[in-house]
Amino acid sequence: MARGISDYKKLADKAIGELKLQRGTPRGLFEPIAYMLDGGGKRLRPVLLLACCDAVGGDAKMRLPQAAGIEMYHNFTLLHDDVMDRSPLRHGKPTVHSKWDVATAILSGDAMLTMATQLMVEGLSDSEAAETLKVFNDTAMLVYKGQQLDMDFESRTDVTPDEYLEMISMKTGALLAGACLLGAIAGGVRNAETGRVLYKYGMKLGVAFQIQDDLLDTYGDEKVFGKPIGGDILNDKKTWLQVNALQSRSGNELKKIIAGKELQGEAKIAAVKGIYEREGIKEKLTMMLEGIVAGAVASLDSVKGEIKEESYVLLRSIAEKLTGRVK
Amino acid sequence: MARGISDYKKLADKAIGELKLQRGTPRGLFEPIAYMLDGGGKRLRPVLLLACCDAVGGDAKMRLPQAAGIEMYHNFTLLHDDVMDRSPLRHGKPTVHSKWDVATAILSGDAMLTMATQLMVEGLSDSEAAETLKVFNDTAMLVYKGQQLDMDFESRTDVTPDEYLEMISMKTGALLAGACLLGAIAGGVRNAETGRVLYKYGMKLGVAFQIQDDLLDTYGDEKVFGKPIGGDILNDKKTWLQVNALQSRSGNELKKIIAGKELQGEAKIAAVKGIYEREGIKEKLTMMLEGIVAGAVASLDSVKGEIKEESYVLLRSIAEKLTGRVK
Repeated sequence: MARGISDYKKLADKAIGELKLQRGTPRGLFEPIAYMLDGGGKRLRPVLLLACCDAVGGDAKMRLPQAAGIEMYHNFTLLHDDVMDRSPLRHGKPTVHSKWDVATAILSGDAMLTMATQLMVEGLSDSEAAETLKVFNDTAMLVYKGQQLDMDFESRTDVTPDEYLEMISMKTGALLAGACLLGAIAGGVRNAETGRVLYKYGMKLGVAFQIQDDLLDTYGDEKVFGKPIGGDILNDKKTWLQVNALQSRSGNELKKIIAGKELQGEAKIAAVKGIYEREGIKEKLTMMLEGIVAGAVASLDSVKGEIKEESYVLLRSIAEKLTGRVK
Repeated sequence: MARGISDYKKLADKAIGELKLQRGTPRGLFEPIAYMLDGGGKRLRPVLLLACCDAVGGDAKMRLPQAAGIEMYHNFTLLHDDVMDRSPLRHGKPTVHSKWDVATAILSGDAMLTMATQLMVEGLSDSEAAETLKVFNDTAMLVYKGQQLDMDFESRTDVTPDEYLEMISMKTGALLAGACLLGAIAGGVRNAETGRVLYKYGMKLGVAFQIQDDLLDTYGDEKVFGKPIGGDILNDKKTWLQVNALQSRSGNELKKIIAGKELQGEAKIAAVKGIYEREGIKEKLTMMLEGIVAGAVASLDSVKGEIKEESYVLLRSIAEKLTGRVK
């Protein structure tokens, strides 16, 4: 019987449970790792990896270490990002450096990166392992470069939409793309082109994901989104909304709001949303999001004959879910 | 012609130079990495790796990526350790988080770990790469566990000499041991036992190294040691000297000095050295150091027939240099 998203999520949770992180010693090293991975979450990256494994004729159940590995890597980036951003909370829970300390957060994160690398090659043939390691490391380097660009952008007001797109492609897109390609390799994909197309599908998915997140932060439903709406505006965060608005005719007006620091709270949110409204930013980005999702589906269509029908339907549904949630 | 230590050091410097880190982009990610690796230093780990490669019949010149990889890994641990310890200086130069910031230090360190992994397998066959990756990752996990134990020990006064030995075996010994075994694998070692013995040699070397460092911090010559003598005593650092003295008949007296915080500066150094003197700590540890170095040489002797004569002489000289430098 065909596996659905919830089946893949269960497999991902099982993969992580089997690591028995609570039993690792020294406890000071492994408890924060167990805490990070215990957080639940959508497990999107292992779901994609396992689904792409099945898609090319592999068996997801045989590739649980890879599923655990990609989720471990993702959580490593979250753990270190939280230290770098000095975030006190993640999903309403204290972050590792808040609950323990910065040294613990750094060291446990380092161990997570090494453990992720170990898991990625577990149970693979030497040639599969070599290919997997190359894709995994290349993906990781893109993630760091994207993170660095994101940091570089903080002090700039002249970031172009293309630069922003490049940054989120690396910071968010690369890992979803890598998850898809790594799943295909783990599934023994025979046609290298199929792997490359699944990589592109994952990349578009990741970019669409980030744009949706940017949109929801300003236009989402607080109950569904899970955090207060307007946070990005209040923090002057470089989102695609802001980047595009800064390039519009109202760009100077927005620059003054950001530099002036006079407007606060709801008044600031209203003023910035007013600029977005006037410049049609929301409509522009909603269309862009739909275009990118359509691109992801088009990628899938181009390998429809190469992957399982049920996998095609599932991967397509993941992409299409990304539209239609914006008020 | 046989290569000497300075030849291997030159090869290691060449390996690092060929990475062209100054040209990497985004510059914010790669400049701190270049800064870390530009620091000079003895390059002990790549020297051991390359020497063990030659020792088993390989050609060190063919394995420069592995030499760069092990030095990259070592410098990654130093970079993150400096953040964790909040050290402002390393070898008299500002640390990365002092010169840039904590976020930069964390992210550049993360990239160094991934780059080290990439370098470790560069140019190897799939089966060599699989073996190398396993040893490298296992070594890295030992390093993190050792670092965690070191942190755990900070708040304890009942650490036994055996526990301390286990900690430095992991924190310092594992990477030197790993360098030797990885060098043997990179050199195409045929007899797995030879690799295991070189690992043990490196482990003993690492432990001896740490003990020597502990001794020199209290009994060294400031001009040779390169930093003020007595720093470990002033900071109540858990060294083998302190751990052994705490277990002696004068243990309670030492505990009071540490807990009391009344004695400062030279007076504290003199009081603690007085305890060490009375309990014969220096003599005990000097003998232990000589025993461990003798053990490293005995390991080498046991594979004398399996490795090149010139390599045997060189590796033996590295071990023997570790004795006789204590006043």
